[in-house]
Amino acid sequence: MGSTERIKNVAKRVAKWHDAGHQMVVVPSAMSGETNRLLGLAKEIMPQPDPRELDMLASTGEQVSVALLAMALQSLGKQAVSYAGWQVPIKTDSAFTKARIQSIDDERVRRDLDAGNVVIITGFQGMDPEGNITTLGRGGSDTSAVAVAAALKAKECLIYTDVDGVYTTDPRVVTDARRLKTVTFEEMLEMASLGSKVLQIRSVEFAGNYRMPTRVLSSLTDPLMPLDEEARSGTLISFEEDTNMEQATITGIAFSRDEAKITVIGVPDRPGIAYQILGPVADANIEVDMIIQNQSTDGKTDFTFTVPRGEYTKAMDVLERSVREHIGAARIVGDTKVSKVSVVGVGMRSHVGIASQMFRTLSEENVNIQMISTSEIKISVLIDEKYMELAVRALHKAFGLESA
Amino acid sequence: MGSTERIKNVAKRVAKWHDAGHQMVVVPSAMSGETNRLLGLAKEIMPQPDPRELDMLASTGEQVSVALLAMALQSLGKQAVSYAGWQVPIKTDSAFTKARIQSIDDERVRRDLDAGNVVIITGFQGMDPEGNITTLGRGGSDTSAVAVAAALKAKECLIYTDVDGVYTTDPRVVTDARRLKTVTFEEMLEMASLGSKVLQIRSVEFAGNYRMPTRVLSSLTDPLMPLDEEARSGTLISFEEDTNMEQATITGIAFSRDEAKITVIGVPDRPGIAYQILGPVADANIEVDMIIQNQSTDGKTDFTFTVPRGEYTKAMDVLERSVREHIGAARIVGDTKVSKVSVVGVGMRSHVGIASQMFRTLSEENVNIQMISTSEIKISVLIDEKYMELAVRALHKAFGLESA
Repeated sequence: MGSTERIKNVAKRVAKWHDAGHQMVVVPSAMSGETNRLLGLAKEIMPQPDPRELDMLASTGEQVSVALLAMALQSLGKQAVSYAGWQVPIKTDSAFTKARIQSIDDERVRRDLDAGNVVIITGFQGMDPEGNITTLGRGGSDTSAVAVAAALKAKECLIYTDVDGVYTTDPRVVTDARRLKTVTFEEMLEMASLGSKVLQIRSVEFAGNYRMPTRVLSSLTDPLMPLDEEARSGTLISFEEDTNMEQATITGIAFSRDEAKITVIGVPDRPGIAYQILGPVADANIEVDMIIQNQSTDGKTDFTFTVPRGEYTKAMDVLERSVREHIGAARIVGDTKVSKVSVVGVGMRSHVGIASQMFRTLSEENVNIQMISTSEIKISVLIDEKYMELAVRALHKAFGLESA
Repeated sequence: MGSTERIKNVAKRVAKWHDAGHQMVVVPSAMSGETNRLLGLAKEIMPQPDPRELDMLASTGEQVSVALLAMALQSLGKQAVSYAGWQVPIKTDSAFTKARIQSIDDERVRRDLDAGNVVIITGFQGMDPEGNITTLGRGGSDTSAVAVAAALKAKECLIYTDVDGVYTTDPRVVTDARRLKTVTFEEMLEMASLGSKVLQIRSVEFAGNYRMPTRVLSSLTDPLMPLDEEARSGTLISFEEDTNMEQATITGIAFSRDEAKITVIGVPDRPGIAYQILGPVADANIEVDMIIQNQSTDGKTDFTFTVPRGEYTKAMDVLERSVREHIGAARIVGDTKVSKVSVVGVGMRSHVGIASQMFRTLSEENVNIQMISTSEIKISVLIDEKYMELAVRALHKAFGLESA
């Protein structure tokens, strides 16, 4: 939420839904810039503040929002009541700054709703078993919203963001990318984790765990737009696979620039070698994504994998220090100028030939494929980053995803 | 507390006390300007915000302070833990924006102290029986500090303010006013309520209820000043009357500019008339201070009393509307250009002649006394406001209060 003007607009939107007979629970984020302001104060005190105190500090941002939103609704003549996470309570574990929700008590909220109130709950935070305030980390407000919706068995969870839905690919790369009316949970998971940063991956996982229909829609539209129009806007993350039957085989083209490739060359091809290479990498908390082991020649093989680009230097360090000599590898090479492009769609399950069409399209554009990985609903390729946009546009066209 | 720089200074000061072997509980106020910023946001939303939501909002200011102070102490190598009022818990009634503390649970704090922690608790706030956040209203942080000190049976409650103690009178009026090393609780009550705005009257009352020795001292001194020097600085509000035996008969000269006088003229002198005049005034929530009823002549009398200057118009309104005709008074006159000057001291109990010395001093300065009221430890006079400073200076000198 931005200024108080923006809070008043949120109130108008919520009042509109409430007027139409819906019981409403609202989980606003902190006002724009507020969380950064608070964390900035902490940094002025010390570079690495204690996580418990950081949560005590950061949680105030959302508390300000809920109180102001309650007032704004009251000024529109609505009954409204705000709660901090601990008041609901939203119970979490004790992992300060990245806590996970364990349970939500719906009794108090339910009673307020039944009494005609709009209930406003702080996002991003809860209370641990010792009564400490915890925060959920990045995307925490979205996650809270989905979790509260699930606890209350809501009909739908609406997530208002600064985009108006999920697209077949990033409209900044492909100008005629099309907004998807619905997307299945599994597709959304692939789209989100592959770089379509509409929703934080954890809130998507939460929606999945509780099979909570979740709609991503724009907070920038006129708050007084007709309700039926708003209710059909955005993109619905659905748990009915049937809803996508009418759609194309392929739902979208996801991509990620945030990739780096590492190859361990001349590795003795013996059992356990993959673990000996990737174990130390995992121990350093580096996430490995695509993995390939070449066919062995003369008892030696090459082992290639990708890591987030920001972890590249750390990963190379770990390998040079704890792996190369230990396993008797010849040398380690890497490349940070690579990107991942993925074709995603549940329709893939029942259609053959998606992979071959993908590879043919890339071949026609002279894009060399460095690595391939597949799952039931996606095919990903790693390519030179300079061809990434070309590849996304060609695939978007080849699979007929452009808007009509 | 002001900037983070100021928070770091508070931390240094607290660490110094802790190093000397004291268990420390700290109750910081919100950062300078923060409460006003929050209330400003509320006003942007609506002119008369809901008190419950106002408390939800305003309480975040102190929560920010406690978290930052905990970090600052940790950065000095101290163990520190912060709590919001509800976490202690500090239990209050449900009078939002002006709640009163009902009980404080010391178990959690005691455990932390015994484990070597500095404990930092939000001032100004608590939790009502329904689990709502409440705030204590003006001066709430001081009141919280005294209440927490009492609950923990602390040795002394230190209140750091922007003045360095309680003076024989306002140093802006009398330049050689002297800082009092100690003052009794009753004197402090008179000094505070009579306009020496060092501590909010409620925190003084709290100190009195729990007989908690409370020291007012300056937050502006070097935080690393020698501890024994700091421990003797400021003014101690004491509950040992003996401590003042060595001091002068009179402790200080208090005064208030915030006065207005109202006279109801030609009132029939019959039983119940005082109630008929002051009842409607009290019903309008206007506090009446000094009261005089003149000797009756011809069955008629004049009835004079004082009210806070800001309530003068309202009081006149009430009297004209609901009192004058009803009781058959001739007319009502008022004067807003009056001030109250008081001579305060527990020594007065055992010394005669204080009143006559006061009246002689004022007479020598040609200051006309309009009203007089007395209690065991003070004598107050109402005078024309233009003579107020003259009167205060003359009395300060006459009772020998100037610094040596």
